[in-house]
Parts: sequence; structure tokens; C-alpha cells
Amino acid sequence: MRVKYFDHIASNPLLPEVLEAMMPYFKEQYGNPMSMYDLGMNAKGAIDTAREQVAKLINAKPSEIIFTSSGAESNNFALKGMALARQDNGKHLIISKAEHHSVMNTARSLEKQGFVVTYVPVDEYGMVDPETVKKSITKETTVISIIHASSEVGTIEPIKEIAAIAMEHKICFHTDAVATAGNIPVDVKDLGVDALSMSAHQFYGPKGAAAMYLKTGQRILPLIYGGIQEGGRRAGTENVPAIAGMGKAAELADAELPKRMAHVRQLRDRLTEGILKIEKVHATGHPEHRLPGLASFVVEYIEGEGMLLLLLAKGIYAASGSACTSKALKASPVLISMGVPVSMAHGSIVFSLGIGNTQEDIDLCVEEFPQIVNRLRAMSPFAKEGWGAMPAEGDSKEGA
Amino acid sequence: MRVKYFDHIASNPLLPEVLEAMMPYFKEQYGNPMSMYDLGMNAKGAIDTAREQVAKLINAKPSEIIFTSSGAESNNFALKGMALARQDNGKHLIISKAEHHSVMNTARSLEKQGFVVTYVPVDEYGMVDPETVKKSITKETTVISIIHASSEVGTIEPIKEIAAIAMEHKICFHTDAVATAGNIPVDVKDLGVDALSMSAHQFYGPKGAAAMYLKTGQRILPLIYGGIQEGGRRAGTENVPAIAGMGKAAELADAELPKRMAHVRQLRDRLTEGILKIEKVHATGHPEHRLPGLASFVVEYIEGEGMLLLLLAKGIYAASGSACTSKALKASPVLISMGVPVSMAHGSIVFSLGIGNTQEDIDLCVEEFPQIVNRLRAMSPFAKEGWGAMPAEGDSKEGA
Repeated sequence: MRVKYFDHIASNPLLPEVLEAMMPYFKEQYGNPMSMYDLGMNAKGAIDTAREQVAKLINAKPSEIIFTSSGAESNNFALKGMALARQDNGKHLIISKAEHHSVMNTARSLEKQGFVVTYVPVDEYGMVDPETVKKSITKETTVISIIHASSEVGTIEPIKEIAAIAMEHKICFHTDAVATAGNIPVDVKDLGVDALSMSAHQFYGPKGAAAMYLKTGQRILPLIYGGIQEGGRRAGTENVPAIAGMGKAAELADAELPKRMAHVRQLRDRLTEGILKIEKVHATGHPEHRLPGLASFVVEYIEGEGMLLLLLAKGIYAASGSACTSKALKASPVLISMGVPVSMAHGSIVFSLGIGNTQEDIDLCVEEFPQIVNRLRAMSPFAKEGWGAMPAEGDSKEGA
Repeated sequence: MRVKYFDHIASNPLLPEVLEAMMPYFKEQYGNPMSMYDLGMNAKGAIDTAREQVAKLINAKPSEIIFTSSGAESNNFALKGMALARQDNGKHLIISKAEHHSVMNTARSLEKQGFVVTYVPVDEYGMVDPETVKKSITKETTVISIIHASSEVGTIEPIKEIAAIAMEHKICFHTDAVATAGNIPVDVKDLGVDALSMSAHQFYGPKGAAAMYLKTGQRILPLIYGGIQEGGRRAGTENVPAIAGMGKAAELADAELPKRMAHVRQLRDRLTEGILKIEKVHATGHPEHRLPGLASFVVEYIEGEGMLLLLLAKGIYAASGSACTSKALKASPVLISMGVPVSMAHGSIVFSLGIGNTQEDIDLCVEEFPQIVNRLRAMSPFAKEGWGAMPAEGDSKEGA
């Protein structure tokens, strides 16, 4: 059975051209980039090229790109590194309630070190209000970090407006652009951000390569201390093949972005239209300001896990909530923060489309999904008796 | 010209069998290991297998292996994570003066957070005296970290003795085994360590995959917060292909260790014998307790860089000092801590041998190297006038 992979937000397949760009560094070019001989300099050259390619994708200077091993590392590095470098100026941070776990849990770890964190709310569409960010600023605020787009509901946040507010107050601004960089236009100058996280496997590059953009002149403390790699900002022998692959993937994304976006947007709209014909199914996230390839819903009365299993039986790969917690099977904190009741949040289903998906994939999904929902609802006590069938304490326990 | 690669301590070539084990995860098995469908579970399965393979290599339990992206990350994670998790018990750490930069600079960053660090000296062979470690222990000591073997002089430290002292005082003990794991027998139970760092590209595995052994029950704070990967101890989408490759490399190292050690030891002894025939060349590090594949010297009156360049012209790849600072061209702090004068430390040359090296490689090196030394000495003012030709302040400035 042909795989209908609709979980690109969890990970993308690697493009053959990207793998090809990586191969020399798994074979004859095995040198350490810090070594002064040709084997080392060739490896260093591959990193330099990738740095230019990644910089171009987001309109940064090559010297503003720091390679890391994952989007999570970039987020930890940005938030912790900028906050700790400025702790003499203040210990107040602002993030949103729609952040990825790697930002959320880094903020929590900083709270344990004496920082105060304001978690600004999101509206029913998962959108942060720049005015709320502005009102949360205190004299102690040093860093604001707001996600560019949620991987769970697809909402694209008003980063440009928030970055302008941060700049006006001389506060560092970071955005987690893991879901956007390489998938929609991301221009660090236009956005006006001081730091930005991105990850290669979100745009058909390899796992194990990611980057942080850090604006020239911005201070940061390293997360990983050691040798002088990455300008002394991130130690450790460079993952040369993966970095070379990230560069190639960035180059391809840069060249094909409009085409890729048009492709997934058209498929997504077709999928959304089909799925919303089912009763008591609600689209989540913002209807317009959203990732072009992401269709997200809550389906009343049934649970994400059941839908995923029955979809799989049809060769359809989707997700329910974030990949980083999918095994925890908790209701998505992002949906909860949008005001979706816990019971309903369990019925989350996310389809994230990619360049390999076809009209036929979508038509099959639109055909099969209503039957899957019906089959699961036929087994659900809630579908017959409404939400009243759920024990009252269930919600409060899990929401805690 | 055939490459005579004698810089395995900087990075190893990847074994073809290792690359083969990685390939499925660059191709059809592109799922995120956190996803619940087959593509995710297959990726997760690859990580589980690798965890068993790596655990077996060092006689640990699979659950005691945490995958990271580099030896530097493992060292940062171990030292910072264990020290911060115990800071209510005390803020005193002990490391040696022969540590890798990733331990040294992490310790320095902890000093800025209010920790006190004792840097125990090494003797003329680069060896730490367990008694000195014992005497450095205070009621505030929570973590001791001593390198297993130096990548610059090859000396293998008395880890078992030091670990026993740490255990007796209920202090956590970590060792940086990046240069040893996969190259000599490393048994965490026999050594008695609580934590240990290792890196795949040091034993013919890929760059971008490394691990930390953490003994069951040992507390640690994450370096990278986020999702629940690696048991919640290290967030970020796993670098599945590199981890699979590390597992395969560990399996091969485990099976071939005696053979590999005998091969490089014999070559190293032949090389050492040949090189020590040159006048005013001194072997560095311990003559017996040393890495089997590492031959290290200081050559009086000339500089490492010149030797490297002339060796390269003969197709011979060697190093001078640690790869992580080779571009900084500073005298090696490890040699300085062993009492080698700064002027002489600049004449450091390190040959690290691997399984692909041959008798012919060694013979060529033994034949060419004396001529290279003679040629450089013919240009050196010191060779004619002795060390008196060097400005007196040169030493003190650089040694600071």
C-alpha cells in the first residue's frame, strides 16, 4: 500500500539531492573541520557553503548562523543564552502559551534559577495579541520569545509587530521558526528578530542539523562550551554531512518555495473542505494566518489515537498533537490555551502536507475519514449521550 | 598520492558497514521516533538497537545510555547537569589540568555561577595522582571529572582508583572517555564511574552522534529541555541515522577491539622507535599507560605547524595539539601543565593511528620525518643559538 504521509510536521523525508550533497562527507571527506590540512579544509568548506545557503534562505549574514543539532537545542540556546547573558539587567522573560515544549520547559528551568516568566495567552485561534505582550513588559524584561507558527494548529503569529514592540523597549526578541523556516518566507530583517530557531528536517533536510540565527552584536552565553567551533558560540565537532545537507535543503527550499507553498495550500484547502463536511468537526487555528500545508481539527466525542490507528489501516499517516508528546497522550496544552475543552482537545487530528502528496492522497483521505469518524463514534458513549457522559473530575485533573 | 592519515584522534573515517546501517534512515525510514505509526516505530527501533549496542560496548544497561550530538555536549551535560542537580549539597568541583576544553570551559562557566573548581595538577607524564584528588575533596565537593585519556599525549589516567575515592566520599564521578571508548576496553562497572562521555566518530562511527553513560539512580538536570526524548533527559528529535551508525560502530568495535589494538600498538611502537632516533625529540605522555594508537612528541627548536605542512607534502596527515584548538595555534595547555616549557610545547606533534594504516605508511613517515625536522631546524634561529634566541617575555605572555 502506498504511504499517504500527512505528518510532515513530525519529520520530512530527505530529498535525494540533499542526501547526495551529504555523501562525500560520509566517505572520502572525513576530516575534522578544525584540522589544517585539505581533508579538514574541505569539511570546513562544506560548512561555510551551508552557512551561506542557510543565511540566504532567511536573509541573514552567514556569520549570523550558528549550527546546532536540533530545533530544541536552538530554542534552549537562544532563550537560556540570551537570558543569562543579560541577567544583570533583569530577570523577566515573556513567552506565549502556544510555545513548543523546548521553549516552554526552558522557561520553566529558568524560573527555577530565579527568573520570572510571563506566559501571554492566545485567543481562540491560537493567536498572540501584540498589545498583551506590550502590557506584560516590565523594567526587568530582557527576552521575549514567541513561536512563529504552531506545529499543532498552524497559526502564524504577528512576529513583526511583536518584534517591533520588543525593539522599541530594547528587549531581545527570539522566535521559534522551526515550523516555518523553509516552508514559508522567513526574512529575519523584515521580521526584525534578534534570534530565530530553525531545523533542517522540517524542510526535507536531515535530522541532526539545525541552526540559530543570532543578529550581529547580540550577546549570548553558549549552551555547549569547549572548542572554538561556530565562532566559540557552540562547541563540539561539527556534524559535517548533516550541515552540508541542511545547506542543500535550504538552497532547494529557497528556490522552490512559491511552488511548494502553492502545492500544499491547494491540497490543504481541498482536505479541509472535505473534512469540515463531517458533523461536529471543527477546524483549529487561524483560518487565514496559518501554515499553508497544515490542516488541523478537533473531532467531537472521539479520541485522536483511535482516528490515527484507523487512518493507518488505510495507509494514511497523521498526528494528534505535537510529535514530541504524542507518546504521552495528553491533551494538547496549545488547544487548552485556546479555550478548547479538555474532552474535545483529545479529539485532535493534524494533517501536515508535503511536496510528495498528491490529489489522490487527499481524495482518499476525504473519502475514508468520515467513515472512520462514524465507526469510532458508534463505539463512543459520548457520541450517544453527549459530553455529560464524561466524569466531571476528568477534565479538572488533566487540565491541572 | 595515497593518504597516510595519522590523525584519527581528530576524526575517524566512517566504516562502510556503518554507513550501510545508516542508509535506511536517510531513505524509506524517515519517520520521527516519537510517532506511533510504523515509520516512527522503526526509527525508534533503530535507536533501541543502537542503545543496546553502545551499552554492551561499555558494559552498561541500555537505559543508562543517553544519546547526544557530540562528546562536547556529553561533557557539558555531565558536568553542568550533575553539578546543578546537587548544588544544594555543595558547590565545589574537582577536575584535572589535562581535561579537554569542553570540560575545562564548562567548569569555568560554572565558576561564574558561584561554583569553586579545583584543578588538580598532572605529573610530567600527564598523569593525575589519585591522592591529590583525595586531598582536594572538601565537604562541599559534589562532582569530580577526570579525563580517561588525553587526546594530546595519550596518557590513560588511573580512573578506577579515583572513582573509588569519589565513591567512598559519596561524590559523583564523571570521566571524559571520548578518546578511549571504542578504542580500548572501557567497562563502566569495573571503572566504577557514575557518568562517562563517548563519541561515535572516535571509533569509526559518524559525526553528530555521541552518548553519555549515566548510572541508574544518578540525578542530572537536562542541558536541552523540551520533549520526552531520551527519557526526558535530552530533548530534540533524535538524529536517527547517526545514532544507528553509532550503534553499528560500537558493535564492530566491541567485536574487533583486541585485533584493532594490537594493530595500532605495533605500528605506534615502530613509529615511536623511529622518531626517537632524531636528536632532541622527546616522547610526551606516559610510556606505558597510554592509548595504543597514539604517538606524541615534542621536537625542540621548531614549530608544529611547519612540521605538519612538510609532512602533508608527503601525504602524511598528523596534528599538533588538540583538533579543537588547532586553528588557535596556542601552545597546548596539557603540555604546559606537564611542565613542558612553552617554547618546546610549540614543537608538539601527534600521530594517532587507525585500523587503515599500514607498515608502509609508518616506514615512509620514519624515513621522511627526520629530513623534515632537519630542514626546519636549518631555518630555525633556536636550533643554532639554543633557546636563548627567544625573547624572554614570549613565554610568560602565552603561558598566562
